[in-house]
Amino acid sequence: MASDAPLYAQVEEALVARFGVDLHPGDRLPTEDDLIEEFGVSRITVRRAIQNLVTRHLVVTKRGRGSFVATPSFSQPLTALTGFVEDMNALGLRSHARVLLIEEVTAPAEVRAALEVPLGAKVTHIERVRLAAGHPVSFDETYLPTELGRLVAQDDLENEPIFTLLESRHNTPLIEAAYALQASTAEAAVADALEIAEGSAIFRIERTSFTTGQKPVDYEVLHYRGDAITFTTRLPRPGAGSGGDQ
Amino acid sequence: MASDAPLYAQVEEALVARFGVDLHPGDRLPTEDDLIEEFGVSRITVRRAIQNLVTRHLVVTKRGRGSFVATPSFSQPLTALTGFVEDMNALGLRSHARVLLIEEVTAPAEVRAALEVPLGAKVTHIERVRLAAGHPVSFDETYLPTELGRLVAQDDLENEPIFTLLESRHNTPLIEAAYALQASTAEAAVADALEIAEGSAIFRIERTSFTTGQKPVDYEVLHYRGDAITFTTRLPRPGAGSGGDQ
Repeated sequence: MASDAPLYAQVEEALVARFGVDLHPGDRLPTEDDLIEEFGVSRITVRRAIQNLVTRHLVVTKRGRGSFVATPSFSQPLTALTGFVEDMNALGLRSHARVLLIEEVTAPAEVRAALEVPLGAKVTHIERVRLAAGHPVSFDETYLPTELGRLVAQDDLENEPIFTLLESRHNTPLIEAAYALQASTAEAAVADALEIAEGSAIFRIERTSFTTGQKPVDYEVLHYRGDAITFTTRLPRPGAGSGGDQ
Repeated sequence: MASDAPLYAQVEEALVARFGVDLHPGDRLPTEDDLIEEFGVSRITVRRAIQNLVTRHLVVTKRGRGSFVATPSFSQPLTALTGFVEDMNALGLRSHARVLLIEEVTAPAEVRAALEVPLGAKVTHIERVRLAAGHPVSFDETYLPTELGRLVAQDDLENEPIFTLLESRHNTPLIEAAYALQASTAEAAVADALEIAEGSAIFRIERTSFTTGQKPVDYEVLHYRGDAITFTTRLPRPGAGSGGDQ
């Protein structure tokens, strides 16, 4: 945050920078008096910073009890193939990934079907936890054809989005993706990765991304915390009298 | 099913007609021999009928153990404002509704916001369970402005889709709808309505439908069984180099 930014914005970003470091969801924010003293700013400035964090759904205030770090929650329009880092940037949130696993495996049936590789073909399997402002939001499994996967496996997957790596570094433009969205509950491995209770609500998203020539190059299974994301869209009604219902 | 339909199709539809009546999810289908005798058709015909039901995800076969009625599960493209009955018809499934509740209530805040009615305004609240081939699939809460709700409340809501009633009977064309999709888990009331265990995965969908002039006329909260529906879409990648990720 540039030091010529407004004071309230500097306080705001200084607090965001602590999320996931020494401030976690449910933690109480320092009191107004503490923040006034820490940053040497007015109460009005502190209140504006906190109000902005509330507006960004990063902080919740509880009447008479103070302000608390919120679980990141955001709304994502289902309109374009965008990625986690883009979405987080749009919210002004730092994002990064924890890489849990990179391995080469024989493609399971669903991966063979998605990537259109033959029986017995090897693929690169990457498991990452995606974090927003330090909080785990998504557990992602990625399957790439090994010729691409071996390249991506050398990259900085903690900080570099795979889409960006494919497009900018590995000469693989992305054209579109096919999505399948399901509501599910977290099994133990997913729950552990997302730091939630087993059985918590999960958005399970299978996404196959295509490069030129309708060639599938990236198959993912994304597990979003159900309490973290809302998908939105607007759909037109087909021609009048088409007998729809709710 | 017209009697001049192929024999396998007649057997197929005769079985579908029993789903939710005397055949429920998990029930074993009659044996091939039983069906051969019941319908007076060949084993090939019976097998084709059952294979078609498997293809339609209405039946699952377990090696060595026979065929069983499946929980209805279907895929719905997020491309147009279509309704439950349309979607079920596309799958060749009978659908109807159980009306649990019709009442006039003072609009809660979320309903006021969605329907753009003032504080204290009355709305019609309708609760229905939607069934596919006799199986509960969705628990729907519908809120309508009372001038429309009082009309719809007189209609045959067990068999008539509300969209159709609005469009065809109550002079209220639907133009588009705004959707918000969340992954959640079933609370007791929803679980009971859908005949699933409390805590089961649920798609929670808020949908506001608009008539001409961007006037909201129908606000719904839909609760789909998570194991019943997959939403699909294809999204284009914004211009190359837009730095997306997964």
